Amino acid sequence: MAERAALEELVRLQGERVRGLKQQKASAEQIEEEVAKLLKLKAQLGPDEGKQKFVLKTPKGTRDYSPRQMAVREKVFDVIISCFKRHGAEVIDTPVFELKETLTGKYGEDSKLIYDLKDQGGELLSLRYDLTVPFARYLAMNKLTNIKRYHIAKVYRRDNPAMTRGRYREFYQCDFDIAGQFDPMIPDAECLEIMCEILRSLQIGDFLVKVNDRRILDGMFAICGVPDSKFRTICSSVDKLDKVSWEEVKNEMVGEKGLAPEVADHIGDYVQQHGGISLVEQLLQDPELSQNKQALEGLGDLKLLFEYLTLFGIADKISFDLSLARGLDYYTGVIYEAVLLQTPVQAGEEPLGVGSVAAGGRYDGLVGMFDPKGRKVPCVGLSIGVERIFSIVEQRLEAELLYKKNPKLLNQLQYCEEAGIPLVAIIGEQELKDGVIKLRSVASREEVDVPREDLVEEIKRRTSQPFCIC
Amino acid sequence: MAERAALEELVRLQGERVRGLKQQKASAEQIEEEVAKLLKLKAQLGPDEGKQKFVLKTPKGTRDYSPRQMAVREKVFDVIISCFKRHGAEVIDTPVFELKETLTGKYGEDSKLIYDLKDQGGELLSLRYDLTVPFARYLAMNKLTNIKRYHIAKVYRRDNPAMTRGRYREFYQCDFDIAGQFDPMIPDAECLEIMCEILRSLQIGDFLVKVNDRRILDGMFAICGVPDSKFRTICSSVDKLDKVSWEEVKNEMVGEKGLAPEVADHIGDYVQQHGGISLVEQLLQDPELSQNKQALEGLGDLKLLFEYLTLFGIADKISFDLSLARGLDYYTGVIYEAVLLQTPVQAGEEPLGVGSVAAGGRYDGLVGMFDPKGRKVPCVGLSIGVERIFSIVEQRLEAELLYKKNPKLLNQLQYCEEAGIPLVAIIGEQELKDGVIKLRSVASREEVDVPREDLVEEIKRRTSQPFCIC
Repeated sequence: MAERAALEELVRLQGERVRGLKQQKASAEQIEEEVAKLLKLKAQLGPDEGKQKFVLKTPKGTRDYSPRQMAVREKVFDVIISCFKRHGAEVIDTPVFELKETLTGKYGEDSKLIYDLKDQGGELLSLRYDLTVPFARYLAMNKLTNIKRYHIAKVYRRDNPAMTRGRYREFYQCDFDIAGQFDPMIPDAECLEIMCEILRSLQIGDFLVKVNDRRILDGMFAICGVPDSKFRTICSSVDKLDKVSWEEVKNEMVGEKGLAPEVADHIGDYVQQHGGISLVEQLLQDPELSQNKQALEGLGDLKLLFEYLTLFGIADKISFDLSLARGLDYYTGVIYEAVLLQTPVQAGEEPLGVGSVAAGGRYDGLVGMFDPKGRKVPCVGLSIGVERIFSIVEQRLEAELLYKKNPKLLNQLQYCEEAGIPLVAIIGEQELKDGVIKLRSVASREEVDVPREDLVEEIKRRTSQPFCIC
Repeated sequence: MAERAALEELVRLQGERVRGLKQQKASAEQIEEEVAKLLKLKAQLGPDEGKQKFVLKTPKGTRDYSPRQMAVREKVFDVIISCFKRHGAEVIDTPVFELKETLTGKYGEDSKLIYDLKDQGGELLSLRYDLTVPFARYLAMNKLTNIKRYHIAKVYRRDNPAMTRGRYREFYQCDFDIAGQFDPMIPDAECLEIMCEILRSLQIGDFLVKVNDRRILDGMFAICGVPDSKFRTICSSVDKLDKVSWEEVKNEMVGEKGLAPEVADHIGDYVQQHGGISLVEQLLQDPELSQNKQALEGLGDLKLLFEYLTLFGIADKISFDLSLARGLDYYTGVIYEAVLLQTPVQAGEEPLGVGSVAAGGRYDGLVGMFDPKGRKVPCVGLSIGVERIFSIVEQRLEAELLYKKNPKLLNQLQYCEEAGIPLVAIIGEQELKDGVIKLRSVASREEVDVPREDLVEEIKRRTSQPFCIC
């Protein structure tokens, strides 16, 4: 029975591997090879006899946190919370589920990913999909028109998990939002400043924050000739430009969504541009775009935003990117998304890849959707996606001792292999006498003696090899 | 429309009030009176016209935490976590939902209260009902046989909420458990010590920990002549003795559960006893009970437990109570439950009432239910029920200032009435000159001058009036 369980686990892992390769668009041969392995394992497993065996696992796309992973989580949260507090935010919490109707009509195409609870009598409930909609519901319910709050909690999406890349179905969001009527772009600039402060403090590598504005996108769609009814779905297509080529996006727009090719090309001319404040100024002079009221408002606000960002000294981290669209329906103004430019790769590990680690924007209409009289409360906020950050920090925290009274060297090396530790520092009697440290690469089993004073530099050099971006 | 919403809310609150009174077994007249009010309100409301209005609320039995409530929560968690860490526990976390089959067959009659997720394709999931079963699943999955861990997280029960009394459908549990094979009763004694340390530190009033052993109950049922198949259901009846009289429990046993009256009476002779180590010693001499192997083991262990508790200096807080049964199926040995003996009552507030604030016990068979080879890992643990504690601490933390540049006295008094603050300290020019402070009772509007040096004593005296227990 235990053997069968192991085989089942192998089949599951191999299946995950195949799906992962497909998602990463690996070469056809590579996928074929892995599929063959999967089929072989399945043949070995044979048909399931009798009733289904009990499976000892957490639900798909979720994970436990071990004490070691909890230590990383608490460390990351400490950095984030202290920044949120420094910027004057209070903390709130809301239930893990909401009335189903509270979430209805807020997430556009993503609504299909919402987890519903079974109807067991009483209210219809859904697990929260983000912390923004519950926040808006909280504001309306308590008739608050002015608050800076943070909220750190798990949210739930029935998405395709890719857990090695930090994408889960249950995952933490760390949200900071400013609700209230203030002078233009000051709260927005503070949100970007907070994002940069946190990403800098976490020391997870260089990053860039892409910025755009929903009004610029809508204005651009209008002047290009996209029908009003297709704004949101074309927005979703544009948003894929960070993952696939312009040609593929164009195919989707024309083939699937029925846009005329010349309209798509017109959009293409715009959305392939990115730059700093000078691009904002250039587009303000654009003969077409400058005729559209919405686009003009968006560009004017972005110009003001860049002025504040320059004062904050973070303008060099910000890129105005016309392809940034964000999936969610509720954004009304500035939107932004922070991406890591590179992540440290460790011997024998798959790289975590570049990707979004924080995002947010302005949503001035959401609270009004909940208020019985439709009273609006302007809001802007950001969300830190910490799962990917946990993975990166976990990989970095690798200096280890074996807690054994009488540790044999061989056992220690074996432990390093199992735990994926790349380097071992060995100090025996000879090394002490010579004033050196023996550095051993676990993967290649090579050993070199390094003078004690050069040790830190040598370890740094070896653990920061050229980055491999997938 | 807004008026209708207000009326609907009134109907809802009045309905809740009626249900509450029924639960509290209030007098028939009182219930009748409140039902009449409810019917009048419903008549005013009339039939619902057109489609159902959107209801702005959190799901039944759940609540948001405001920044102020979060401060209480963090304060309480700090006390609990520092005690858990002092006793050497590591922290883990698990997903909010588990595979449905992971929870199946663990909770006995309470299983009907589990929240299931809707089948949206893929695995069948349920929200966790406690933190103990996920812990056992975690141990089996990671093949751990030895760990001290704590886990603080929300759990979910489709129970009848009574939110003014701190009973919710989404609520926190703070769990500490010791897994592993150790000398008898040492981990069990540590769990009781931790319970007492935490309840003392929280300063929420005097408490008592009831202790019993599942083996004593089972032995007692056997010698009284309860058929094996009825042990668990008779256990559930016995567990109600802290809320209803022996007569009612006996009626349930005989009328509903088909026990012979003389069998019930025999049980009654035992379960109405409680005391300290001397009761343990007395029952060890009991001619019937001492003939039962299980009961004898349980009593022997309790005797040893009391010896450790005496060494820890907490034996006076512990009461051996033969009526303590605990609802859950998985307990196999010692069980315990801490109750507050009284809670501070505040002017105009309903008392929070006595009730359980912590509980736990030994469950030696649970991990084996998950292990593919049925390998057992003995476990014992405790769970602090913090919602009731939050309510008590929130009531206590009432010293307030009004954040107004130019606060009028009348506004301040009005605020106190609304917020249920019982006492106001007023210091005007005259009071400053006289070296006194004017103390005003918000409810009665009486005012007295109190010498400054007596102020603290006088406030303490007034806020700790004789307790009214409901």
